[in-house]
Amino acid sequence: MIHELGEESTLHDLVEHYFRASFTTENPIITEAVKRMLAAGGKRLRPRLTLLAVQACGGDATSYLHLAAYMELIHVATLIHDDVVDNAATRRGVNATAIDFGNRTSVLAGDYLFAWIFKNVTANYPAPIPHVLSATLAEICDGEVLQLHALGNLGTTVDEYVAMARKKTASLFAAAAECGAIVAGGSAEHVTALHTFGERYGVAFQMLDDLLDVTADSDALGKPVGNDLAERKMTIPLILALSRNDDAFRNDVRAFFGGTGMPIARVLEAIERQGGVTATRREIARWSGEAKRALQPLPPGTAKERLGALADALIE
Amino acid sequence: MIHELGEESTLHDLVEHYFRASFTTENPIITEAVKRMLAAGGKRLRPRLTLLAVQACGGDATSYLHLAAYMELIHVATLIHDDVVDNAATRRGVNATAIDFGNRTSVLAGDYLFAWIFKNVTANYPAPIPHVLSATLAEICDGEVLQLHALGNLGTTVDEYVAMARKKTASLFAAAAECGAIVAGGSAEHVTALHTFGERYGVAFQMLDDLLDVTADSDALGKPVGNDLAERKMTIPLILALSRNDDAFRNDVRAFFGGTGMPIARVLEAIERQGGVTATRREIARWSGEAKRALQPLPPGTAKERLGALADALIE
Repeated sequence: MIHELGEESTLHDLVEHYFRASFTTENPIITEAVKRMLAAGGKRLRPRLTLLAVQACGGDATSYLHLAAYMELIHVATLIHDDVVDNAATRRGVNATAIDFGNRTSVLAGDYLFAWIFKNVTANYPAPIPHVLSATLAEICDGEVLQLHALGNLGTTVDEYVAMARKKTASLFAAAAECGAIVAGGSAEHVTALHTFGERYGVAFQMLDDLLDVTADSDALGKPVGNDLAERKMTIPLILALSRNDDAFRNDVRAFFGGTGMPIARVLEAIERQGGVTATRREIARWSGEAKRALQPLPPGTAKERLGALADALIE
Repeated sequence: MIHELGEESTLHDLVEHYFRASFTTENPIITEAVKRMLAAGGKRLRPRLTLLAVQACGGDATSYLHLAAYMELIHVATLIHDDVVDNAATRRGVNATAIDFGNRTSVLAGDYLFAWIFKNVTANYPAPIPHVLSATLAEICDGEVLQLHALGNLGTTVDEYVAMARKKTASLFAAAAECGAIVAGGSAEHVTALHTFGERYGVAFQMLDDLLDVTADSDALGKPVGNDLAERKMTIPLILALSRNDDAFRNDVRAFFGGTGMPIARVLEAIERQGGVTATRREIARWSGEAKRALQPLPPGTAKERLGALADALIE
């Protein structure tokens, strides 16, 4: 077991090594902006899903480190653009790209990174990988536009939330796992199983991200607590808290979103008091369990166990 | 000849018809933003290059209307992001996307459109088309970042200018013509000829665009005159005017860029007085002539004549 954990950490190290030592683009300004984002941290969960999916389908993970890295880079490119979109001042505990490089460079750096990834993917990976990744990027953007237009909409339902989370977050986890399965030559059943695992894992992951915005402290999170709330995002703890139909709470949220000076701490406390935190934990456990259930068709083995452990880690 | 002109205008109409009647995406907000950009006009030169390249290589242009349309849509996506990047208030005479929809939606709409194009291109066109287009998008962004970092740099040389224009503008014209030649099954020599035509045409096109910012009136241009200058862009008329090494002029430009209240009309007049306009017309003629020369390997015919006429039109 120590050996196996060691192996997983080696794969992680190889991806990190690629980012530090090999990743470069033709544009030094963009390379620096991307390397700073990468150096600021991140759990590299998307590459990990790709490499574990390769292994679960009997492939050699070390042959697909670049493909795995591209999954993280798609995520980084969306973060660079999110920083512009959200006017976020910090990201992963360091200044956002947009703060240090300006909005103009951030927009172009994100565009360049998307194009650079597709340039490399189309050069090195056969169909359907380039199509899966471009369709996924379209879904991410679609989901982000939907989220943007749901800002401050107190009528947002859990189903609407899940539909947005599937697109903006879960689609990339699904693609990361699916692409690993495809390049490893997995059967159609195993490709579907890993896609489904990634999608359900991604929904649970987004819910946990929402939860941490309510419950974590800003040092641990690397960004301000209540940041989502301040941006009037309809997060799952808020939606579930509102589903109790407490008029006083609803009025408080409306007042906070209206910028009347209602303190954010009061709203955060009320979300917990209205059961939003507990209900969110329940939803995360449900989606995490569904993710593990999707793994059933895969043969037993270390990769399957580790994917299951990733799902379990969301509810610890 | 009337019939032939009629045929070209029919192809143009078919592309327009696709944009008006068939173009749609999964996201209605983004579809509306893109359709507004398209309805505001544009000469559709990039699709025209694709379709003429198809014909020059003996193909049926009507079979490649969607591919041609994607060339315009890549351009539109970069314009949507330029609006964010440049804080442009108007574009093609109507409000910029960023003004009506907000910066956040503009960033996402441009991203979505890029992804949507690649999703469709990877689904419908074989290698190397998806790779050519993603590599081109990387070049465009690279060129725009270079331009951004050259803003207000009075030492920018003509060679540096051409290197930036090749990337940010000419690369898409080159790809538009090249992809038309490839899908029509053109020989390697003809594919190269059309790529080279597109690239040289694109450099001349960018120089004309720069010239119009100095000489046109704002109604004809659909955007404010002197807009480039106000953004401290190192345009070719300015670079060529500065190459005379007139200290008084250089000081005026420096003062204008420094925001000292120097009137823009004075700088625009001085660019002309320093020979910047005349020298730019000479450069455009040179690049336009080089573009026509690139067509030599192609068989004689209507398509070749029309490509030549497009190059000629830049110097009228």
